[in-house]
Amino acid sequence: MTGPILLPLPGAEAFTDRLVQAGGFGRGGVETRRFPDGEHYVRLSFDPAGCSILIVGEMPGPDDRFLTLAFVADALRDLGARRIGLVAPYLGYMRQDARFLSGEAVTSRSFARLLAGLVDGLVTVDPHLHRFATLDALYTIPALTLHAAPLMGQWIAREIPHPLVIGPDAESRQWACEVAAHAGAPLAVLDKQRHGDRDVRIRLPDLAPFAGRQPVLVDDIAASGRTLVAASAALRERGFAPPVCVVVHALFGGDAFAAVSAVAGRVVSTDTIAHPTNAIPVAALIAKALSETGAP
Amino acid sequence: MTGPILLPLPGAEAFTDRLVQAGGFGRGGVETRRFPDGEHYVRLSFDPAGCSILIVGEMPGPDDRFLTLAFVADALRDLGARRIGLVAPYLGYMRQDARFLSGEAVTSRSFARLLAGLVDGLVTVDPHLHRFATLDALYTIPALTLHAAPLMGQWIAREIPHPLVIGPDAESRQWACEVAAHAGAPLAVLDKQRHGDRDVRIRLPDLAPFAGRQPVLVDDIAASGRTLVAASAALRERGFAPPVCVVVHALFGGDAFAAVSAVAGRVVSTDTIAHPTNAIPVAALIAKALSETGAP
Repeated sequence: MTGPILLPLPGAEAFTDRLVQAGGFGRGGVETRRFPDGEHYVRLSFDPAGCSILIVGEMPGPDDRFLTLAFVADALRDLGARRIGLVAPYLGYMRQDARFLSGEAVTSRSFARLLAGLVDGLVTVDPHLHRFATLDALYTIPALTLHAAPLMGQWIAREIPHPLVIGPDAESRQWACEVAAHAGAPLAVLDKQRHGDRDVRIRLPDLAPFAGRQPVLVDDIAASGRTLVAASAALRERGFAPPVCVVVHALFGGDAFAAVSAVAGRVVSTDTIAHPTNAIPVAALIAKALSETGAP
Repeated sequence: MTGPILLPLPGAEAFTDRLVQAGGFGRGGVETRRFPDGEHYVRLSFDPAGCSILIVGEMPGPDDRFLTLAFVADALRDLGARRIGLVAPYLGYMRQDARFLSGEAVTSRSFARLLAGLVDGLVTVDPHLHRFATLDALYTIPALTLHAAPLMGQWIAREIPHPLVIGPDAESRQWACEVAAHAGAPLAVLDKQRHGDRDVRIRLPDLAPFAGRQPVLVDDIAASGRTLVAASAALRERGFAPPVCVVVHALFGGDAFAAVSAVAGRVVSTDTIAHPTNAIPVAALIAKALSETGAP
């Protein structure tokens, strides 16, 4: 049996190449374009018959990503692929995990059901789990969850002298604690209250024991950036240096990155989503897991 | 038992209102917006429990349409809808109906499978059938096909004096013949050869017997518009007046509408896709079918 062949969705070519290099995997290609009416054209540039294929791409990604994945996965199956997995370094649709108001769609369940209809297994990094304890509570296909906390901690230990790691809220305490432990740094956790998509209020704990340390705000996702902005402002009011922000998934919608940059010091991220802040590659982490467990 | 409740996807509100008015159906609503990270939020504004629902919207429509449909359909089912149908006045992904080159995705099959996973039945107008004789060869759910040819013929009879109806190719002869019959006009059919998405060559038949008539080019879809442009140019070379173009689905991608307008006379369409050329409403046609057959 040969190892898996990695197949990038459009936009994931560079990430896939790093993963191929880290794990010594095979690499396939796919041609995608649009017809004049906007419909997708998809053509595999290799024969997947009998192969185990890992499609690589963040999910959901751009609006047209889901249909591209569906057409690629169907073509692979149709042409005899033995097994089709998905490597989604970022896996979205984790937040609407309950019906808060009558009539709401529980999109996390719907999206999981859609993906499970296309691929046989899933690998991702730090999904934003909240009401669901693990991906298995949501996904009916095998789902492997990897954690970037050790890599983030190691980066902090290497780059930031005298750091204080600060987690965004009580819920993420355990994850932030892992980062701090790998950084060999103390940990503080914010008291965060969300009043809307973009309305986030922060209360700082007693940070007097950590005066003079370089605050390092860690979070799994930077989307609106409001948590990082509010926390940075609060820390500077307490006399701390502009904080370093270290996040797993650099979503940064709209003006979020500009807003964070304006109040924070350095902003860095892992490369699960391509962004100028990428400084912590996760390819080796994913490649190791794929080599140890086989394709998902 | 009460009749179906019609529920427009974003962009299909006006079409749905015409359908509701034509058939005396109920109408539901849905709130859709995006989170800062781009993910969809969907909330039904009514209780669908026990109801038969018809979601209305062209397919595939904009890139984000499929996920919107998936989340709406899932929410309806989750909240107890008895039956969920789809009214897609325009149904796309009919063209890649075979693997012409190795590795190609047969997107018509994949798209049909995706829709069949979401809804219980389908109503559409003049799908672009080619290798598949009927929608039933492609869709595993009940699919009702309606035809706009009578409406187009009636429009021509009413609006165009002394017309000559011209069909785009031999394959669509039967459909163009229906238009001509309802227009009470003679029929000619072009010899069309397609060499690429945008490279269309046209040969005219002998049109000498029809000299002096107003040519009316009919087609099911205007996408790149190249057929209409090439045919219009050829007709004018033979000394005919600028042709009237009458199409079912006004897709008109990119600069297609400008290109057609430059060589044709009047350009009109049915309202299966909202476009400035819409002149032939299909609401009554669909409403009648829904009333006669019940929800699909």
